[in-house]
Amino acid sequence: MLNYRTEDLTPEAIALETEVAGALAQSTRELVDAVIRSTIPFDEMVEIREQVDALTARLRASQLEGSYGAVISTEGKVRNMGNTVVGQRNAIAPPLQTHWAEDGTASADFTLGAAYEGPPGLVHGGVSALILDQIAGEAAAAGGSPGMTGRLTLTYKRGTPLGPLHAEGRITRVEGVKTYVEAHIGDAEGPTVLAEGIFILPRWAREQMAQQKQETFE
Amino acid sequence: MLNYRTEDLTPEAIALETEVAGALAQSTRELVDAVIRSTIPFDEMVEIREQVDALTARLRASQLEGSYGAVISTEGKVRNMGNTVVGQRNAIAPPLQTHWAEDGTASADFTLGAAYEGPPGLVHGGVSALILDQIAGEAAAAGGSPGMTGRLTLTYKRGTPLGPLHAEGRITRVEGVKTYVEAHIGDAEGPTVLAEGIFILPRWAREQMAQQKQETFE
Repeated sequence: MLNYRTEDLTPEAIALETEVAGALAQSTRELVDAVIRSTIPFDEMVEIREQVDALTARLRASQLEGSYGAVISTEGKVRNMGNTVVGQRNAIAPPLQTHWAEDGTASADFTLGAAYEGPPGLVHGGVSALILDQIAGEAAAAGGSPGMTGRLTLTYKRGTPLGPLHAEGRITRVEGVKTYVEAHIGDAEGPTVLAEGIFILPRWAREQMAQQKQETFE
Repeated sequence: MLNYRTEDLTPEAIALETEVAGALAQSTRELVDAVIRSTIPFDEMVEIREQVDALTARLRASQLEGSYGAVISTEGKVRNMGNTVVGQRNAIAPPLQTHWAEDGTASADFTLGAAYEGPPGLVHGGVSALILDQIAGEAAAAGGSPGMTGRLTLTYKRGTPLGPLHAEGRITRVEGVKTYVEAHIGDAEGPTVLAEGIFILPRWAREQMAQQKQETFE
């Protein structure tokens, strides 16, 4: 079901993709924001739309089938540059730059602007959920017990203002294939949304890991 | 805290903004997708980036401070065109076009492409949460008991494939200021993620509604 491509790329080639395509995505983030907030005349917006379409056509002259997926480099490094939250090539992603601390905490500092709005001036409740799913999942991995989301419970304490924010998570306990994680997102005054997650390592991943372990011993 | 602008716009002016700015956002969605998937030479990406920046600068020649917020037209219609899930001016939004049925069900059919990817080929678990927060919130409103998200619990049954999807929600019960909603997202084979939500009408909204009721009687 999951398509991991393997690419014969040098670390330099990977760094170049991150730099060039990442910068294009960053410029596209600015465009997304400007499209929401612009008050220029409509006839000029029509012109700009035509130019956006022309740029898209140039980019599509050669493109991947379907989605970006995950690429495993020859060094074994996984790149998921299309990911909605952390993907450097994805203009939807803020993108979160997550930090994995030695104590197993995964955290990120980031700023959410106009594109992440739900109620006026506030972060969309679902955007907090989106970010907390990512942070909690990374905490499970950072703590050594990765998995896919099995259950996620979000408790909203107060509105999350648009602007600079912080999110972090850590494992609270591990029971067999289940990893329990607590996380929160918040502003300078403290947490605004709390999350409790259960992450489960799917059977295919366990089998793959067992297979790899077996190969190591062969 | 919440900034609702009131604009003296005719229905025709509103329709024109939806058409022109909405089309620009749609083109921007295509650009977001192309930036993720393009395999054209990096030097051409650098050129395209410069042109994206130029278009952004043109759009920013005149723009709203901060976010789009919610605009209440003279007819009392609320437009939240910047909303992350349903905002027609927001390229992050698929956008969901939600349908409110007479029985109080809120639902939407939509397609999620490369920009919504988490695990390879699958919708990011947090994107399902984002959409379910919106659908469940709309179900609370569609059923006559609106509120802001108080708690949202998501249960992941299986991976949600990128492609055509369906989401729907409905109120299960109302207790005072709390509205309980069930919702799910899924593909042609059935639900992939289930949601249970509690939506709470905040005090400021209750006071505002009481105020409006009072004015009606004055």
